[in-house]
Amino acid sequence: MTDRIYTAGLVVIGDEILSGRTHDKNIAQVASWLQVQGIRLSEVRVVPDVIERIVEAVNALREAYDYLFTTGGIGPTHDDITVDAVSQALGVPVIIHPEARAILEKYYADKGGLTEGRLRMARVPDGAELIPNRMSGAPGIRIGNIHLMAGVPHITAGMLDALTGSLEGGAPLISETVGGFIPESEVSILLRDVENAYENCQIGSYPFFRDGRVGSNFVVRSTDRAELDKCLKTLCEGLTEAGFDFTHGGI
Amino acid sequence: MTDRIYTAGLVVIGDEILSGRTHDKNIAQVASWLQVQGIRLSEVRVVPDVIERIVEAVNALREAYDYLFTTGGIGPTHDDITVDAVSQALGVPVIIHPEARAILEKYYADKGGLTEGRLRMARVPDGAELIPNRMSGAPGIRIGNIHLMAGVPHITAGMLDALTGSLEGGAPLISETVGGFIPESEVSILLRDVENAYENCQIGSYPFFRDGRVGSNFVVRSTDRAELDKCLKTLCEGLTEAGFDFTHGGI
Repeated sequence: MTDRIYTAGLVVIGDEILSGRTHDKNIAQVASWLQVQGIRLSEVRVVPDVIERIVEAVNALREAYDYLFTTGGIGPTHDDITVDAVSQALGVPVIIHPEARAILEKYYADKGGLTEGRLRMARVPDGAELIPNRMSGAPGIRIGNIHLMAGVPHITAGMLDALTGSLEGGAPLISETVGGFIPESEVSILLRDVENAYENCQIGSYPFFRDGRVGSNFVVRSTDRAELDKCLKTLCEGLTEAGFDFTHGGI
Repeated sequence: MTDRIYTAGLVVIGDEILSGRTHDKNIAQVASWLQVQGIRLSEVRVVPDVIERIVEAVNALREAYDYLFTTGGIGPTHDDITVDAVSQALGVPVIIHPEARAILEKYYADKGGLTEGRLRMARVPDGAELIPNRMSGAPGIRIGNIHLMAGVPHITAGMLDALTGSLEGGAPLISETVGGFIPESEVSILLRDVENAYENCQIGSYPFFRDGRVGSNFVVRSTDRAELDKCLKTLCEGLTEAGFDFTHGGI
């Protein structure tokens, strides 16, 4: 663990997200996984299946952050162009990865064999390593600080699992939540003052409406456990003084 | 209706999305709504509650697309800084909007009155108009081509509803879906060839795993109904020739 903050960007690739047809699940999944690795997700861009747009987003985010993840566009069809885009961004050719080819040959041996479409999934930017995929054969791809993951969420989950512990991270961001049927507008000054009193803590306020009642969850975040506990205690005292009931862990 | 394609960008603002704590619902919601308005969502950026990062994303996307939408950061608390960021991006001061103040005074009359925190929700970039919010008082904000919406999805929904029909759009992108227990890797060449044969159509392939079986939905998109129907017919003939069963509307 170090004091350095490690950051990541995520590029979500796919017309299906931008059309509203598919509800993205990978942003939250990648974000949660990164937290545990001690890496902070700092920006997400969702871009269409257009090579220039993917190249632009990949170049912007791979330079701005320690790590870059992409989801989507590594399957067997004509709209799967992430490998081409990342190769172009890095200025390297696309090659057939021999190990990926072997994995796919084995996976498809009793499923009709390695067709032209399926062979597309062995294509990688020259110099890449593979990220294992126990779910469906076709591997993810790692090159430099870029990690190309599947778009289908449960396959992405398997690839993230395979990467667990392999990336250098810092102190994980930890958080504590208190929540209640408290209108955030009635405690906004308290939240601001408590946050200002603790330099290494941030407080997020997340309102909700439930059973016809207004409430909020307040999330205190820090990389420092002692500071977090002190900040949480001050916040709870303030809420009690203001006459509010609340529950640790949020509601 | 015109042949011009209208485009939009979306900036999703909030640490809670980047931490994985909150699963975003606004991308799909805004995307679907824009489709009906004849406007294409072309890019999404998710950024943290950091003013410089919001300013940067707002300036990039408001210039690149016809419309810009933002979600999140317009509530009463210290982490609600979207109005400040958009004002800075546009180089205009933040003012208290008299109509917004009147709306909030009325809304909070029997809820403890207009506190300092609540008054924050009447702040707008100078020159802005309001977007009605029938759910919870605090209005959305429209200035130039920028639309500032709430982060809580059902409030966003109300604001989008209030905007329905007020933005100039083009021909809506229409789509037809066929799907079946068809591995996309077995029809990838067919999909590519059919798409290439119809210039005004795109075909998206969306694999799934269900009940232990592999399948795909194929979505044909176009702004031209006649072309879409022809393209769909060719695709269905190809799938039938290849020996696959499929269902119109997808599965």
